[in-house]
Formats: sequence, structure tokens, C-alpha cells
Amino acid sequence: MCIFCKIVEDSLPSYKVYEDEKTLAFLDINPVSDGHVLLIPKHHEQFIEKLPEDDHSAVFSSLRKLVKPIQDAFNAPASNIVINNGPNAGQVVDHVHIHIIPRPEPIGGNFFAKTSRGEKSREYFVKIAEKIRKEVARV
Amino acid sequence: MCIFCKIVEDSLPSYKVYEDEKTLAFLDINPVSDGHVLLIPKHHEQFIEKLPEDDHSAVFSSLRKLVKPIQDAFNAPASNIVINNGPNAGQVVDHVHIHIIPRPEPIGGNFFAKTSRGEKSREYFVKIAEKIRKEVARV
Repeated sequence: MCIFCKIVEDSLPSYKVYEDEKTLAFLDINPVSDGHVLLIPKHHEQFIEKLPEDDHSAVFSSLRKLVKPIQDAFNAPASNIVINNGPNAGQVVDHVHIHIIPRPEPIGGNFFAKTSRGEKSREYFVKIAEKIRKEVARV
Repeated sequence: MCIFCKIVEDSLPSYKVYEDEKTLAFLDINPVSDGHVLLIPKHHEQFIEKLPEDDHSAVFSSLRKLVKPIQDAFNAPASNIVINNGPNAGQVVDHVHIHIIPRPEPIGGNFFAKTSRGEKSREYFVKIAEKIRKEVARV
């Protein structure tokens, strides 16, 4: 079973920030910024264009709900929203996922500024997830 | 008026690949790959989270329709789908737009591989747009 399906089932731990019937959002454990979230459909599918229509609608409806609270949790006026659709595009886990990356600071002139990914502590993730859940709850 | 609104109105030329009542897709004139498309809601709004719900649904419904034909037009098994939501995230035009970037080749280990943007000829764009429209028409 894919690791995101295990996260959905709770047989793998994750730092959840949002959940509803058809979608789940949790922290990327290799964040490119504080508050780097992965939003997924619970339904397993590798490619965005193959998602059933109701799962597709659900995941983008959750995106609409989550962008602002995730930005606000880090005083970020902006975010990058990214789907790597297939291995050639940098997809590592073969389950559709949307990266939501808050940007408190300008990323500079590149299309996508590289940010180093580092090892982060459990406390780091607990604190970050808590911040986001608090903002989500306000909406 | 913003340049994407001018493109919607046809007062600025563009290489269109898809259009419906609420959305429009055209070639990025500084492509990071062949077939780099921008998909926009016709409604003017800078931030994804502020788009009215029906425009939001329409633009992601068009995304669902367009991803596969855009990939197929360039024999790409993958694509990057990117929204730079705000200037800090690299947004240059203040009208919501989704980058769809087909990836025939692996982009490598970086979260987002840089690809040089070059000046391209009118013929280049005409040919690329034609390829995509052909695939869109098949669906």
C-alpha cells in the first residue's frame, strides 16, 4: 500500500492539519518552508487527470479552504501551489498530492527558488501543525 | 486593465489553446518547456482563495480537461502544475493563472528544475498551439 494511503488509514503517523470525508492535509516532512503542507484526495490515484470527478472537486474545494489559513499561520502574503504530476515532473509518491508552500519572504527571480530541506524535530512539526489547525478552525 | 484581461478581451494577441465560458488557456510566451500553457479564469482576481466559487470550479474543471492533451501533444508522461499565488511566490501578473508545464524528460532531483527561458519565434508558438488544440479536440 502506498505511504499516503497508509497515512489516510492512520497506519502511518503524520502531522494532520485538515481532514474531511474525501481529502486530507498534513505536513510535508521535508518542508521547503515552514508550513509546507501536502493536500491529498483519500482515493488512491497517481495522476490528477485520472482522479474521479467527485474526488477532483473535493480536493480543489479543500485547496480553496486551506490556502489562506496556511498563509496566515506564517504571516505569508503568498504561497506556491504545486502538483508534480508524474515521476518526470518530480513526483516521488505515486498518489496525487498538492504542495502548498507559504512564502513569507520573496522567493526571488527564479521560477521556483530552491530551499534546502533539512531534518526537523518532532516538536517542530507539532508546533507547525498546531499553528495551521488554529487558522483553519477560524474559517 | 491587466494584460490577461486584455487577452480575454482579445485586445492583446495570444496563442490560445482552449476557451470556454469562464476560462481561457494560452501559451506562456516565456516557456520553461515546449507546450508551457497558462490557464486562467476570465474573471479578474489576483489570489486563488478570493476567486468566486463558480470561477474556481470552472478553472479546475478546465485543468482536469487540459492536462492530458497538453502532455500528449509533447509525448510527455508528466507535467508540473503550478500556481504562484502572490508576488512573494513569484507571481508577476496579478491575475490568477495556472502554469501547466509538460515534462517529456525527467526534471531531475530538484524540487523544480530550472529551465532557461528563451526568445521564441511566432512560428514556434503557432506550431505549439496547434499541437495542443489538436489533442484537446480529441477528448
